[in-house]
Amino acid sequence: MNLEDKDGGTVLRRTPDKIPVRSWRSLLIGRPLPTADAPQQAIGKLIGLAVFASDALSSTAYATQELLVILIMAGMGALHYSIPISFAIVGLLTILIISYEQIIHAYPGGGGAYIVARDNLGETWALIAGAALLIDYILTVSVSISSGVAQITSAYPPLFNFRVELSVFMVFLIMLINLRGVKESGLLVAIPSYFFVLMMFVAVGFGLIRYLNGSLPTVVNPPPITAEGAVQTITFFLILRAFSNGTSAVTGVEAISNGITAFKEPRSRNAGITLMWMAIILGSLMLGITFLAFHIQAIPSAEETVISQLGRTVFLGRGGPYIALIIATTIILVMAANTAFAGFPRLSAITAEDGFLPRQLTYRGDRLVYSNGIIALAVASSALIVIFGASVNNLIPLYAIGVFLSFTLAQIGMALRWWKSSKMKRGEKIVERGSILTYEKGWQWKLIFNGFGAVTTGVVMVIFAVTKFEDGAWIVIMLLPILVLIFFAIYRHYQNLAGRLSLSEYGTPPTIVRHRVLLLLGGVHRGSLAALRYARTLSHDITAAHVSIDPEETEVLQKKWETWGDGTRLVIIESPYRLFIEPLLEYIEQVESQLNPNEVLTIVVPQFVPGHLWANFLHSRTANTLRNVLLNRKDVVITEVPYQVE
Amino acid sequence: MNLEDKDGGTVLRRTPDKIPVRSWRSLLIGRPLPTADAPQQAIGKLIGLAVFASDALSSTAYATQELLVILIMAGMGALHYSIPISFAIVGLLTILIISYEQIIHAYPGGGGAYIVARDNLGETWALIAGAALLIDYILTVSVSISSGVAQITSAYPPLFNFRVELSVFMVFLIMLINLRGVKESGLLVAIPSYFFVLMMFVAVGFGLIRYLNGSLPTVVNPPPITAEGAVQTITFFLILRAFSNGTSAVTGVEAISNGITAFKEPRSRNAGITLMWMAIILGSLMLGITFLAFHIQAIPSAEETVISQLGRTVFLGRGGPYIALIIATTIILVMAANTAFAGFPRLSAITAEDGFLPRQLTYRGDRLVYSNGIIALAVASSALIVIFGASVNNLIPLYAIGVFLSFTLAQIGMALRWWKSSKMKRGEKIVERGSILTYEKGWQWKLIFNGFGAVTTGVVMVIFAVTKFEDGAWIVIMLLPILVLIFFAIYRHYQNLAGRLSLSEYGTPPTIVRHRVLLLLGGVHRGSLAALRYARTLSHDITAAHVSIDPEETEVLQKKWETWGDGTRLVIIESPYRLFIEPLLEYIEQVESQLNPNEVLTIVVPQFVPGHLWANFLHSRTANTLRNVLLNRKDVVITEVPYQVE
Repeated sequence: MNLEDKDGGTVLRRTPDKIPVRSWRSLLIGRPLPTADAPQQAIGKLIGLAVFASDALSSTAYATQELLVILIMAGMGALHYSIPISFAIVGLLTILIISYEQIIHAYPGGGGAYIVARDNLGETWALIAGAALLIDYILTVSVSISSGVAQITSAYPPLFNFRVELSVFMVFLIMLINLRGVKESGLLVAIPSYFFVLMMFVAVGFGLIRYLNGSLPTVVNPPPITAEGAVQTITFFLILRAFSNGTSAVTGVEAISNGITAFKEPRSRNAGITLMWMAIILGSLMLGITFLAFHIQAIPSAEETVISQLGRTVFLGRGGPYIALIIATTIILVMAANTAFAGFPRLSAITAEDGFLPRQLTYRGDRLVYSNGIIALAVASSALIVIFGASVNNLIPLYAIGVFLSFTLAQIGMALRWWKSSKMKRGEKIVERGSILTYEKGWQWKLIFNGFGAVTTGVVMVIFAVTKFEDGAWIVIMLLPILVLIFFAIYRHYQNLAGRLSLSEYGTPPTIVRHRVLLLLGGVHRGSLAALRYARTLSHDITAAHVSIDPEETEVLQKKWETWGDGTRLVIIESPYRLFIEPLLEYIEQVESQLNPNEVLTIVVPQFVPGHLWANFLHSRTANTLRNVLLNRKDVVITEVPYQVE
Repeated sequence: MNLEDKDGGTVLRRTPDKIPVRSWRSLLIGRPLPTADAPQQAIGKLIGLAVFASDALSSTAYATQELLVILIMAGMGALHYSIPISFAIVGLLTILIISYEQIIHAYPGGGGAYIVARDNLGETWALIAGAALLIDYILTVSVSISSGVAQITSAYPPLFNFRVELSVFMVFLIMLINLRGVKESGLLVAIPSYFFVLMMFVAVGFGLIRYLNGSLPTVVNPPPITAEGAVQTITFFLILRAFSNGTSAVTGVEAISNGITAFKEPRSRNAGITLMWMAIILGSLMLGITFLAFHIQAIPSAEETVISQLGRTVFLGRGGPYIALIIATTIILVMAANTAFAGFPRLSAITAEDGFLPRQLTYRGDRLVYSNGIIALAVASSALIVIFGASVNNLIPLYAIGVFLSFTLAQIGMALRWWKSSKMKRGEKIVERGSILTYEKGWQWKLIFNGFGAVTTGVVMVIFAVTKFEDGAWIVIMLLPILVLIFFAIYRHYQNLAGRLSLSEYGTPPTIVRHRVLLLLGGVHRGSLAALRYARTLSHDITAAHVSIDPEETEVLQKKWETWGDGTRLVIIESPYRLFIEPLLEYIEQVESQLNPNEVLTIVVPQFVPGHLWANFLHSRTANTLRNVLLNRKDVVITEVPYQVE
């Protein structure tokens, strides 16, 4: 460390090569990274796609099935509706992608729907969008890990009884990877993500070639149709529900807009290109899988996934390629959780920056990631996994409402932004918190476009909320306003704090003229004499106090104090109910009530410090208890004087 | 509160009618009881029997079945061995009762096997006996609650999935009852205990009358015999195993000897009479049930308990009396846990008094019970319930080894005591820790008697350990030495502590001549100025220190400090890795290394105190972190100056 004199003050500068080593922490998450390294920790498009798209891409593994499962209620004959519906979903995807492309360029600081809503709809809507997204990120982790573990336990049934432990362990692993930094987690995620994309394109490509040369068979031994009640007639509402269910394919596309700051410069451009690539992969896989699923006459069923049926039909059996496809699908389902770990900490840091979440969430850890946000996400999603017993069926109804709410708010926000833009003169420019607004040509079309998008995603959200209400959606709908209220309460707290701490009207208070000291005595020994020695440096006005539970012990103490107490006054507080804190508090209150405004009371507590950590449970920490009870007293300070025992 | 001057010191005396009210605590466990009330809280024989015998009495509900389940391996024809075996068990019971009767009078301070072993076999054996008993008490709670809950869930199967939660909840309830005090728990336990005894005697009495007038039928529709493999021939070892299994009837008889101090004066007499009554009830029920079970040809089976078969045969069907018998049995199984709650805290308090367990266990709570011991037992047994999934089958192999080990050690200890007594002159008297030893006439017989008892209980223990080793007994056998090592480690710690704190060779160290103060600055605001104001009363040698993570913020802070810092020197500690504690520690170490022996360093930390408890998580507690890290430094004291925010 170098000492340097600068501007009259002293600055301690660390020599840059001196990296603090932190033993087991370094082992788990790596050595600390200096702040100056931040640009090198940014990621490119290739890793960015793997980190932020794994959630969206993994949904191709189940979106088609989700869609078919509704259509089959109207019988096999209704399945052909899946083709136009999947085109409609890709249409919705296009609207969302163009919209988020605009958001990424308009708000290069990240934050997605939250920032768009904050700047165009106001704080309350921003917080609703934020809360919805944060909830959805937590659910993404719980759902994707649970579904990944479900795949594993169906392969190894003995593990079924440990599914909760296994899921929590996996959350812990993904947390560790993310605590190491986005770049390192990116490398780990990239391989399975691209492997999944490859296997999917191989499967779809093979299928299409077979279709074109007429050799595409239908599924051998498809799972039985599990008809729930009588076959329904096909209605507009049923098609709407199938569409809504299929839109699970587009969940996750918002992640990039929340995490722009993770990208290398030029950030917006890189993020935008990554978004586009994601859309192309996602859209073509969705269309391809749905098209092939229809032609091979795949049956949506809980017994065998549509992807599995597709794989063994296209690859003509359960050989190597089929197994590779299934393994890739399992891994990507788990990896989807990683996207949430990239999005949640950044979004919560932005929200905390605005004062709506604890400040600690804005703190970048020694690996340059928002460590507290990552840990918070891991804890919250583990809690959900434990509460819901790692059951995908129980968790899924809570999912996707939040993200569609944020889609809707983002689109409404962008529509309003175009409206604002239309009111501006050409050449005029408004810069607000990093976002630049100018007059845009063709704002009418953009407004209509975003308006249409908002209505579509809004309808999907309402369908979700209504059809899944009883199964769990009510929990999310109930949680949202509660979270928003909590956000506001935190905001008010920080505002109050700033007001109370402000020096703007601070008249210097009188200096303290009298310092009273109360020395707590459990017994008379070297520890308490060390405390007395310390107390003497604080003041000459010292009173020793002992809470007497056992009269015999007290008598011994009084005798000893006469010898060793150096003439310090001793007060014995009798405690007929063997309580310790209560009679002591009563006495402290009495002393405190006699204090003048320019007086202060320090309570000195001798504290044994055992040489071994384990031995701490052999001693009570009186000072901690007192501190917690007395924190609200003005002018009372509690000081622990440690005395090393071993 | 009255202030009184006494012997030159000041004594604060509480007016006796002023009982501190502690809101929800009082509601749960009642108002505090003054120490002077202790004699009124002692219990008589009637309640004592219920409190301390419920464990032993409850074992009549399953002992016969445990015995028969071994015999049936040799076919129906072997069941008649149950009659002589049950006489042998009652014989063992007699030996144990007479032995414990002697212990109660020889060691009126309680502590049972632990104290007997301590005084006659030495510390190590005493700790083995103590550890064995403490483990067994924990198991008693886990097993009896789990078996009670198993009875409830077999009546209401929907509750089966909540068996762990239900069990833990019941442990919590029994803990609360016991925290209220032994007298109140006694009243609550007495009713179901005597109801059980009554129902058992009615059932056995009815059965015997029917047997005598020849109207005793055999069981209608007995459960099928579940033969494990081929029928074995009856061997001596099989009979020994049946005997061992049947001795589960005598577990729990040691409880009174551990808890003598709970009884009214004359304690030993009252405890002894209670023990005698327990033995008579236990012995006659054991004999009666086994006799009747044989004559009605009851079949030991997991499907229906022997008690249930006996009940519906004697009472001629499943009418009111049968239901009452079953309900009483269920309740007594749960109540057996209560005996452990009476024994464990007293035994752990005695062990802690000797310095082998944390001192906190000797502390009598405001309801005059060993609250910490009660809570420790509840936590430990709940942990076992959770780990073993509230499964009686998995828990039972761990059970009973500990108690038989303590039986054996107690008997060996008593045998040695008679040997010691034989060496004494008539009229000679040794008083040691409350126990009086004189020459005893007929010591030879007593020695042989206890020696025989020791061999019997030792053999039973070995059979348990061997036959149940793989099923879980190994856990107990492994835990025992570990616990004993922990006991010794705690003892050494307290011995070291006493040595280090002793004033016997204490040369008064030089008074502190220089007090350096380090004021930590996160920012410059009213809170930090309040801390500066406090620091000024400690010393004139103050240095302010700020850990700089963001250079811009640091510049603002430096400017502000120039205005408000009152000329106090400011040190900026740069932190390129965004760490807070590490660079600060490095600086503190540097300052500390320059301290002279008669100097002290106080680190003053400004701490916001939010008005609401919930808001605490919005602020980091720097002082707590520093305190934990710096506790081992001599002459460094950390002081938090609270600043109330709301």
